[in-house]
Amino acid sequence: MPYVKIEVTREGVTRKQKQELIKGVTDLITTVLNKDPHLTHVVIQEVNLDDWGYAGEQTSVLREQGITADRH
Amino acid sequence: MPYVKIEVTREGVTRKQKQELIKGVTDLITTVLNKDPHLTHVVIQEVNLDDWGYAGEQTSVLREQGITADRH
Amino acid sequence: MPYVKIEVTREGVTRKQKQELIKGVTDLITTVLNKDPHLTHVVIQEVNLDDWGYAGEQTSVLREQGITADRH
Amino acid sequence: MPYVKIEVTREGVTRKQKQELIKGVTDLITTVLNKDPHLTHVVIQEVNLDDWGYAGEQTSVLREQGITADRH
Amino acid sequence: MPYVKIEVTREGVTRKQKQELIKGVTDLITTVLNKDPHLTHVVIQEVNLDDWGYAGEQTSVLREQGITADRH
Amino acid sequence: MPYVKIEVTREGVTRKQKQELIKGVTDLITTVLNKDPHLTHVVIQEVNLDDWGYAGEQTSVLREQGITADRH
Repeated sequence: MPYVKIEVTREGVTRKQKQELIKGVTDLITTVLNKDPHLTHVVIQEVNLDDWGYAGEQTSVLREQGITADRH
Repeated sequence: MPYVKIEVTREGVTRKQKQELIKGVTDLITTVLNKDPHLTHVVIQEVNLDDWGYAGEQTSVLREQGITADRH
Repeated sequence: MPYVKIEVTREGVTRKQKQELIKGVTDLITTVLNKDPHLTHVVIQEVNLDDWGYAGEQTSVLREQGITADRH
Repeated sequence: MPYVKIEVTREGVTRKQKQELIKGVTDLITTVLNKDPHLTHVVIQEVNLDDWGYAGEQTSVLREQGITADRH
Repeated sequence: MPYVKIEVTREGVTRKQKQELIKGVTDLITTVLNKDPHLTHVVIQEVNLDDWGYAGEQTSVLREQGITADRH
Repeated sequence: MPYVKIEVTREGVTRKQKQELIKGVTDLITTVLNKDPHLTHVVIQEVNLDDWGYAGEQTSVLREQGITADRH
């Protein structure tokens, strides 16, 4: 009976990326925990940049300063 | 001091249905746990169909295939 | 596809009370939203009195002062 | 590694107020727990008045009755 | 800035399985969303069988009836 | 009607520190949003080090490597 919530900043996540996250997380749980995927629910919640704070700053401010969350 | 979060797919839940959920959950907690309803908060969160995954699939895809969550 | 989280202070909630909450919430959602109960998950999370704050005070302190959350 | 979620009713919270909440919570955790702020994330979630229930009533109904959540 | 919460029933999940879930989810998000893993936090929350309800029943009752969540 | 959840790793947070967090967050919300503190609930959730992942690693492993979350 797993339930997974994925919270990410709202920065153009596509429908296809969401599908990959849902499929990937469900497969991972099925493999690692041997769970029936029909009991696994995954919810993605996108959060506006003004609403996500990191190190005391709004992400929207960080982005204006050119600071991204991209992998280097 | 109860707090309740209800997450449902966004599929036309009406204002009246939300009121019934809020009233029903609060009454249930008042009855079962003998809690003062003024200390009970209920939050409903609707989730877009692209953002809710079940069995590894987006709910939006399941709906396109004619698969609903309706009671039979 | 509903998921419900019920957070309550840890103050002797019995197994039977939990069952009544789970049954009651699931029945409510089935009735109000016409959802298949096999897609409804309910999670109860008990919170220690030191960890739940109300009006700026720990619930454990409120209880020591004789202030309960009981219905009057 | 702290993560903080702040849920409030959607009633005109400004960008500046959000920044004050994010800055204030992060500073508080840094001071009280001595945590590196680069490991602290704060997420604000605004909830529509129809979706927040208090004492069994939708907040939107309470507001129509002139009942606010303002400090007196 | 992703944050992921994984809720599972407390049924003997090992430290190694938790590590696989944390590593797997972080890698997935890094790959799909191109996020810096140093901004990804994953929290696993185990839930007692009495506290997880499915289809209106406590999971502990389902397990007593021989009903598992295992993949077939 | 604010509700705040604070999740931190379980690393010896004292009762006094929890009280400071609860008091501090409630005061902050009262000041910034002008909310009645009797409508503000704060829940602290401590998470075991094996259950909190950062950058793909369990925090328990990071601690064994001498990596802390302390402010420098």
